[in-house]
Parts: sequence; structure tokens; C-alpha cells
Amino acid sequence: MIDPTCPHHDGSPLYVSHPDPALGDEVTVRLRVPRAYGGVDRVVVRSNPDHEPAWVEAECDGERDGWQWWSARIVVANPRHGYRFHLVRSDATVQILNQGGLSDVDVLDAQDFALVAGNPPPPWMADTVLYQIFPDRFARSDAAADRPLPQWAIPAAWDDPLDPSHPGRSRQLYGGDLDGVVDRLDHLVDLGVNALYHTPIFPAESNHRYDAASFDHVDELLGGDESYRRLIEAAHARGIRVIGDLTTNHSGVAHEWFRNAYGRPDAAEADFYYFHDAAHTTYETWLDAATLPKFDWNSAELRRRFIEGPDSVVARWLAQPYGIDGWRIDVANMTGRLGAEDLNAVVRQTVRRTMIEVSPDTLLLAESTNDAASDLQGDAWHGGMTYPAFTRGVWSWLAEARRIPHRGFDGRVSDEMWFFGLPTGMPRYTAQQFVRQLRLFTSQIPWRVQRGTMSALDTHDTARFATYAAAEMIPLAVGLSMTLPGIPVVYAGDEFGLEAVDGEMSRTPLPWERIGEPEIAARIGLYRELIGLRRAHAALSTGGLRWLHADDDALVFIRENADEAVLVLAARTDVEIRLDMALVGAATARAARYAAGTVELVADDGAVRLHGRGASFAVWTLPGVTAPPACAERSVATPEAFAQLGGPAV
Amino acid sequence: MIDPTCPHHDGSPLYVSHPDPALGDEVTVRLRVPRAYGGVDRVVVRSNPDHEPAWVEAECDGERDGWQWWSARIVVANPRHGYRFHLVRSDATVQILNQGGLSDVDVLDAQDFALVAGNPPPPWMADTVLYQIFPDRFARSDAAADRPLPQWAIPAAWDDPLDPSHPGRSRQLYGGDLDGVVDRLDHLVDLGVNALYHTPIFPAESNHRYDAASFDHVDELLGGDESYRRLIEAAHARGIRVIGDLTTNHSGVAHEWFRNAYGRPDAAEADFYYFHDAAHTTYETWLDAATLPKFDWNSAELRRRFIEGPDSVVARWLAQPYGIDGWRIDVANMTGRLGAEDLNAVVRQTVRRTMIEVSPDTLLLAESTNDAASDLQGDAWHGGMTYPAFTRGVWSWLAEARRIPHRGFDGRVSDEMWFFGLPTGMPRYTAQQFVRQLRLFTSQIPWRVQRGTMSALDTHDTARFATYAAAEMIPLAVGLSMTLPGIPVVYAGDEFGLEAVDGEMSRTPLPWERIGEPEIAARIGLYRELIGLRRAHAALSTGGLRWLHADDDALVFIRENADEAVLVLAARTDVEIRLDMALVGAATARAARYAAGTVELVADDGAVRLHGRGASFAVWTLPGVTAPPACAERSVATPEAFAQLGGPAV
Repeated sequence: MIDPTCPHHDGSPLYVSHPDPALGDEVTVRLRVPRAYGGVDRVVVRSNPDHEPAWVEAECDGERDGWQWWSARIVVANPRHGYRFHLVRSDATVQILNQGGLSDVDVLDAQDFALVAGNPPPPWMADTVLYQIFPDRFARSDAAADRPLPQWAIPAAWDDPLDPSHPGRSRQLYGGDLDGVVDRLDHLVDLGVNALYHTPIFPAESNHRYDAASFDHVDELLGGDESYRRLIEAAHARGIRVIGDLTTNHSGVAHEWFRNAYGRPDAAEADFYYFHDAAHTTYETWLDAATLPKFDWNSAELRRRFIEGPDSVVARWLAQPYGIDGWRIDVANMTGRLGAEDLNAVVRQTVRRTMIEVSPDTLLLAESTNDAASDLQGDAWHGGMTYPAFTRGVWSWLAEARRIPHRGFDGRVSDEMWFFGLPTGMPRYTAQQFVRQLRLFTSQIPWRVQRGTMSALDTHDTARFATYAAAEMIPLAVGLSMTLPGIPVVYAGDEFGLEAVDGEMSRTPLPWERIGEPEIAARIGLYRELIGLRRAHAALSTGGLRWLHADDDALVFIRENADEAVLVLAARTDVEIRLDMALVGAATARAARYAAGTVELVADDGAVRLHGRGASFAVWTLPGVTAPPACAERSVATPEAFAQLGGPAV
Repeated sequence: MIDPTCPHHDGSPLYVSHPDPALGDEVTVRLRVPRAYGGVDRVVVRSNPDHEPAWVEAECDGERDGWQWWSARIVVANPRHGYRFHLVRSDATVQILNQGGLSDVDVLDAQDFALVAGNPPPPWMADTVLYQIFPDRFARSDAAADRPLPQWAIPAAWDDPLDPSHPGRSRQLYGGDLDGVVDRLDHLVDLGVNALYHTPIFPAESNHRYDAASFDHVDELLGGDESYRRLIEAAHARGIRVIGDLTTNHSGVAHEWFRNAYGRPDAAEADFYYFHDAAHTTYETWLDAATLPKFDWNSAELRRRFIEGPDSVVARWLAQPYGIDGWRIDVANMTGRLGAEDLNAVVRQTVRRTMIEVSPDTLLLAESTNDAASDLQGDAWHGGMTYPAFTRGVWSWLAEARRIPHRGFDGRVSDEMWFFGLPTGMPRYTAQQFVRQLRLFTSQIPWRVQRGTMSALDTHDTARFATYAAAEMIPLAVGLSMTLPGIPVVYAGDEFGLEAVDGEMSRTPLPWERIGEPEIAARIGLYRELIGLRRAHAALSTGGLRWLHADDDALVFIRENADEAVLVLAARTDVEIRLDMALVGAATARAARYAAGTVELVADDGAVRLHGRGASFAVWTLPGVTAPPACAERSVATPEAFAQLGGPAV
């Protein structure tokens, strides 16, 4: 499936002159063809402005280091501007390259490479490593003990065991708070992460707070507004950005809006929810959770209060005196969708418009845990918190258990084999299958949005990876999250080696008192080193991605920019892999920049040989990629140029 | 690529209990697993209501004729309700089946099987064979000679050669008219077609009339409104339906709306077009054709006059005294799309809503000559006039010329190798590539819409197939259009064996005086026979489609329903193909229902052997498929059932 002799293009700077163009901008796109592919006589670039193909001839820029380069200028016609390369080979056969791969038949528009006009992600996104915090379980400040508890809460001491059954499951309150987070910010600095994403902090009637009772203030149980202000200030002082969590699909039944609307068809908030009866006593919910009434985004007043304009909830927390750096949107996939209605695009675009108005240098991420391609076209979400491309694939390749117990709504663990929402359990993948699935689920997403998509090993909603994987697989999994395109995410506690059989048990309080234990210190060290690797090498955040090899047990890829390239090997057992040197670029043997396991890179006879013993994850730095200058003058795919090239006749 | 032992599902009645459900309806979906696939322990059906997966267990209905059947009931949650099958095999591995095929990794939502709720196609669509007429070139009535010609016209006698250069190209007027069509309707009856689609008939300043000057009356050059009324009546009297052609993307500059709006920013029609300057003298066009100003669908008044409600253009011709049976929409792919704006869904849904209001039993087809999947989800268009799935594939497999001359806007023929909008020319496909491309381009389209999509060999915009194909390939190509899912289309003149090197030359007047010549009579006979085949066997219009074989030179598929199955072989050279009898269903040798070329079907030893000499196209009828009764009672994928199965925890 992986053919390293395949011509290559992706959205990185080696191949695209402008990652964040505006409509009407000219962008040069480049194609790179290895000598081993065979001769190419002609390359034509197809765009699809307003859904009608338009073509421009690419020019050959010459050859460098065994690669032939082609370039063409295209004019960005639509907010998502898809394009692909048609290659006429020396034997007169034609192959087509888009994100679906190289094909000898025609290819799907949805898998074309795509530029996105407008709504650029903040420049700091590229360098971001995210750290996810579940506030009730992260850390408790001294002030926490004095706070009166609400009626719903079942108080728990920090080392009490989790109760995964109702009602404890959502009501056990450990009392972690925001000043507790402030107290531990230096741990984040020590790890090297530079952004903190916390699950909700608004008042609610549960420990997870996804059932918001208000969006106007921070829960007093967390320390209230002032604590949040302190946290943001302290984080920013350390170069750590703060991403909040907003539930746009539903609120809790305790929300002031719902309390006003429930049973009162005349309330100002009456149209904020989908009520099923005239008396407003039955209503649409998130799945079958009666405590989570679903928002009806037809309501202009709801949009005004929640997401639209500088007085909205979305805006308020971005503005001073808070100034958070972005939002992660909960259940973004279902937001605004119900039966025949689909207001999702309206909601997400309104949220982002408001953010741009108030604080443009901010990030917007969408929870969408399955195929999120239809929503991840760059019009609003900069990326997704999504599982099929990376998360499920890494588990399926590197974790071992076939059975992950499933805990129903009643807290009972069944013997079904649910896995990240799949009732058929965790499959066992080869490395090839991992790569195939990753490529398939990114094939419909513009490169820019791929880079904004979270590469989480686990979250507060999933089992913890370490529970189901052998210890020697941890460097591979964490290493892949740090070296593949996307925003790496560390779920708080993973660096302590915490284990959790499922998404409920993954919310254990962090055992700060054990931080000095050798095993934990070593795991923290592993994370520190791999996070440091990511942050030290720009190619890992902004570089292109070329796959060089995948078999049952190992994969090799390279991240490349003009300054540096980074070669990555991940193998779950002994491997010996031979790569064509011209396709790698390593001229001589060299030591690994990072290695877990015993690895060696030998370069001779035109080949690069990678040897690994046992499970290994290794990274080598190589010289960057030198491309010949792109021919400056060439025709542009305007309608006029299209006509010159010969468009369809009337 | 084709594995006939693959479990099978499609949208046909064997597998889906209700092709045209409403939102909230329960539909039983069935899966059929051949014994050769190996054991299946469990089948789970995934739906994706409101973009969140929901699961239901399928039940095993038992085995019949070597096939195991599974069924599940799903509740239609959204207008496009995607679903797929997860199969747990006896060895505990999982495979997933959707329209993208059978996969051992997760699959894309966009390729899921899909039910469509609402907007059903008219029941007569299934049995429709379409005949396309270009009015100026089809036939001339006696009245035609007396009509005064407009200034733009260059009169041509019926046997004058076409002038493919400007200005003759669009101005040569041969004087075909609607009473000429009436005179020749018995030819359509003789062929066996039962629907007539004609290119535009509104007044214009060209022979093709895609530059409408009005939508209120039929061009007097064609005989005017009365002639159209006569044509519709005469066609209906013969059981032939009439489909009109509407340009929603643009009008001509001579259109009364444009003449009012041009240079007059205060006109009632001022916002019907995209004017670029305050004086309204420069404007957006279709590609670079200055005579074709593009409609701006933001205009409520334009929508009211043209597409919305019973007084609109769309409605008027559907209503009495005309009563046409549907519309084919020109340049549907670009309609309402310009830069950052995309009003396409609004326009198409409004058109269809109006049609339903005035005359629901009508068909709506969209010209979209490339990947049309994003628009063909069933919300408005019943199908597409689209080339990648069938048309380009048939040419690439069965036609011979690599080079089809390209005629630029100036009429000059260049030596570029354009082919149906592809500047890299016609590829040469194997049968495998043909099948692969067909499956790829239908993988994102609901079965119901696949069935409404036109299977044209050529049109008034393309070269004629017969020009580039050996005579013995004609039965294969026409046969495939009649036997694959989709609406077969005969472009007038193909049955005369007319040739045309490109889309301009394909508009030759029909040589009625030669209809008795043996070669022409034979070609007409071929069409008559293949059209008759389609119309005689319901399995060819409503049956399922299973691929049994494809190699370089031959393909075999079967169309199946409960009453009958139809086995189809197409081979471009000598073949001997062995099929597992259990996968075909033919118990004994039998004669072909239709055969072009020398073919034989031998059934023995558990195998079906197909022999063909030379190019062959053959069809055998077989017994229908008997399925065990679907288990009546089973759980349904409501949120409640989802929770029982074990949904995600809050």
C-alpha cells in the first residue's frame, strides 16, 4: 500500500507557497517526483472552482537530489479550494494524485488536496502541545476544603477510590479546583507543554460539569471567576495558553435558561430548546440523558446570548479580564443537528466569527469522535478532537487487549467488547492497517485542518492507553502523537502512568505525592523528552509527511521542511528495513536524535538500513529538502487561462 | 478487486424493505453472506443519526441456497440516513461493509449505504429509457420552411455540413422544430424508449438555445407554445414522457431580465445577476462566455419568478396546458456557486419543492459532468447527467482512439488530447479499471439516486461513441447502459450510427431519408432489441447489482430481484470465465436471452463457465433470489435501544 516511489505533495511549505490564502490569492503548488517513479512528461493541475474543473499546466522546475519538481500557480476560488495533479508518464499513461493516493482511474473530489481561504488558525497552533485537565481531579488548593458542598455532591477524599456507578459516577466530588491547577503549573512547564485544555468549569450538577447550569460564571466549587482569572494569568506568565470547553449541543436541566423555559412557553428562553409539547414539559435531549436538554439553534435569542457577538458567552471569556486562547466544543458533531434539521454550519461559523471579532488569535477545536470530515473543511473548526484517524489506530496497532469492558449508563460493566464507541471491540491492526486507516480518515480533510486535529492517546472519555499496552509500547504511542501531523495531547495522569479500564475510571485524582517515585519519574521523563523533541524540531509541526514503509510490525515516515528533515521509525518488534537512500536523503550513518529500544541507521550502497531490536521508537534528524526555484511565470487557472487551455464548448 | 465471495447489500428490494421511507419510518436492512466467505458470528448495523453512531444487532435469518441472511431494523433519522454492516467473523476479526467495499479498517461515512427520506422519484423512473433530442437538428415539419429567420441565424439546409467554427457553430439554423418531433414520435415508439428529453426550446440567439432570451414562451422558430402543447400531447398519447431543459446557472444576454437589468441599477431585475460595477455594465458570466450572464440566487424576486411557487417558470411548464414530466437542469453543478457563496442547495431544493407542489409525479435531473456526489444525496435531484461513473469509463474501456481532437472556443481543432473535459486525453482502461471507477464514483451516492443517474454513451456535448469504437463494441456499450443501474439514454442519431469527432459535430441533423438503409436498420434493430431487454426485465431496472468478475477484457455482473435474476457478460475479446455456481445461481446450462457475439453458458461441477468468442455481450435470465423471511421482531436503533446496547457514558 505504501509505495515510497510515489510522487509527493502535501500542504506543507515545501509544496504550497501560502498556507493561509485569501479568496483570489495566487498560490504556487509543487509536486515532487522521485526518479524511481519513472519519467513524467507533463503535469496538469486540476482545480474545481464553483464545482467546474479548471486546469493549469505545471512547469518542470528541474531535478534536485534525484527528485524532479513541478510547479503551477492556482487562484483560490472557493473557501475550500480542492486541487489534484494529473501526471502524464513517459509511456503516455496517466496517473492522478490527490489525498486518496495515486490512482490509475479518476479520483473523488472529496479526497482532493485542499487550500482553505479565510479563518486561519492562530500562528501558535503549529508549536502547540496540549495538556488536558479534568478540574475536579487534577489538584486541590488549600482553599478547597473550606467550600460548602452542594446537595448533589458526594464528597470524596483525594485518595478515595472512584465509584463508576450511578450516582457516585457523576456526583463524587474530589474538590480539585483552579487554584490547585495554578499550584501545579510548573509541572506543565517541566513537561514542556504549552497549552492547557480543561473540561468545563461552569456551575453544574455533576463532577464533569458537561451539564452546565450557567455560562456566566465559573463554578464556586472551582474557586469562581477570580480563580479562573488567576489561572489564566499564571498560565500566560509561563507561556501556557488556556483552552476552555463549551457545550453547544445541550445544557444541564439546572441551567437558568432551561429552568426559565421549562413549563413556561412564554419565557424569553422558551425557544432555546426543543420542547415536544405545548406545556413545555417534555423535550429533546442528548441521546437519552434526561438531564441534558438539547439546544434549538433556530432561536436568534439563543444565538445572541450564547455565540453571536461581543456580549455572547463565546466572546466573554475570550475578552478581558479573562482572555482565554480558544474553545474546545463538546459534542460538536451533533450540535444543531436533529432529524431533518442541520444548523451545524451556522453554529460553528457564528462561533468562529465571534471569536475573530473579539480575539482572532485563538483556536477552535471540535469534539467529533468519528469520521468528522464533513465538518472539518476549515470554515470554522481549526481541528477536531476525533478518534478514527489516530487514536483508534494507535490502540489497534499497539495495545494488546481485545476486550475493553463496557460500562453502561447504570455503571454495570458488561462483557461486550466496546472500544471507543465500537461494539465489536478493539481490532488488532498491523502497522499497515494503522497507516491505511490514518490516511483514509485524513484523506478528506485539508492539510491545514489535519494539523489542527488532536492526536490523543486517550481522554477523560476513554480508557487509558497504558492500561492495555505493554510498557515498551508507550514510547511508540507517545512518540507517534508527537511526530505525526496534528496537535499532540497529553491527558493529565498519563505521564504518571495512571491506568484506567474505561472512560469513567480515567478520571482518577492525580497522585501528586507519588511524583518522585522512580517509575513515575521515568514516565514523566519519557513524556518530557518526547514533548521536547516535538518542540525542538519545527519539521515535526510544520513539515510535510511522506510515508516510507509499513509492514505488519513497523512503520517509517519522514517529516520534511527546507531546513531539516526528521526520520521516524516505530516498530513493535525486531525489524530490519531497507530504504532507497534517494527516497530518504540520509547520506551517511548517523546516531539517533532519540531512541527507545536498540536501533541503528546504516547508510551505504545507496540504501538506508534501519535495524531495531525489540520494540523501538527512534528519530533521526537529516538535512532539509532543497527544491529548485519554482518557475516564476506561468499561466494561472483563471477562467481566461482555462479557455486558452481549451474549456468545454457552449 | 472484485471478490464474488464478498458479503452483499445494496439498496434494492431484496435488501431494503422500503426504498422511499419518511423520517421516523422503520426500515429492515438485510445482508447476504455467501458460504465461501466463511462463518459470521455476529453482524451489527451502524447508523449515524445526527452524526453520532448508533448500533443495532442484526439477527441471523438462516441460510438459503448457500447464502446466510442477516437482518436488522433501523429507524430513519435524517434525510440521508447512512448505515453500514460490521461483521464479526468466526475467527473474531471484524470486517466492515459499506459502499466503499469490504474493509478490515474503519470506513468513511461518505461511503456508507444510505436511505433517503422524502422527495421520492416518480414511480415511472424505474422503467424509463430516455431519448435525447436536440430540437434544431432532429426533424423539420412542413411548417418550418415558412418561418421568418432572426438576424442572428445562418440558414442551413438539412443536408448542409455542420460548421463547427464561430459564428456558424452556434448560428447555423437547420430549422428542426417541435412538429417535426411530433411527426417522428413513432420512431421513438419503434425503438421502445418511453421518455423524451429535449435540450432547450425557449427563444434564444443560438441554435442550442442555452442562452435563453425568455422562459415564458416556446421559441416561434420551433413552432411556439402550441407546437409544444401538441408535442406533449402526442408523446403522452404514445406513453412517452417529456423532460424539459432549464438553465438555472445563467441566461443569455438577450433575456428580458438581463436587458432590463443591464445598465439599470434601479430595474426590478437589477439583482438577478452579479454586476461588478455600480453602472451595471460588467457582470459575472458562465466561464468566460460574455453572452451568458450568471444568475445571482440571493435575489428573492428571481427565485419567485423562476423557481419558487406555482407562478414560477419551473411550475408553469409542469402545469396544464403543457404538463411536462420533469426537468433536466443545465450546469446544475455551478448553479448558485460563486467564490465564497454556495446557494446550490437552496436553489435545487426550491426547484424540487415547487415541482412537488405543482406536479409531484415528475423527475428532476442535474447536469453535473464530474464528481457530483456532494449534490446527489437525494434532497432534490433524483439523479445526475454525469460522466465519470459510466460514460468516461465505458469509453476508456471500449473505445480505441487515444486522441479526441479538441475544438476551442474559436472552432479550431487543436492537437491536445481532451476527453470529456480531461486535457490529458482518453485513458485506456481494463474492464477492472472500468468497474473500479464505476464503483468509486457511485460509492458516495445513495442507491436510489444511483438509479436515477443517466447512463449516457454520448450527448450533444460530446463526441459520438461510435466514432471512436469498433463496430463490435457497440453492443457492449449500449448493452451496459441498458443493464447497469441508472437511466439508459439514447442520444438521437446514435441509433442511425451517426459519427461525430466532438461535441460540436455531434449535432448533425438526423438523416431520416436513410432510415431504410440496411446498416442503419441493423443499428436501429440493435437499439430496439437492447431497449426491449431492459424494459422486459424488471431486474434490470429495480434489481440489486452484484459484481462477479472483472479482468483486463471482461466483466460479469448479476442484477437480482425475488422474481428473476439477469446475468450479464461483456467481453471485448475471447474469454473463458469460471464462476462458482453457488455465487451465480444457475443450476443448468441455458441459452442466452440476448447475445452479440458467440457465447455459451455451461453449468456443471458446481461451476458456471462462460465462453465468449470475439467481442461479446450476453444476457441470461436466471431464477430470482429466495431469501428466508426476515426475523420479525428485533430491537430498533432508537436512542433507547442504543442505551440498552450500551452507549457512551456522560
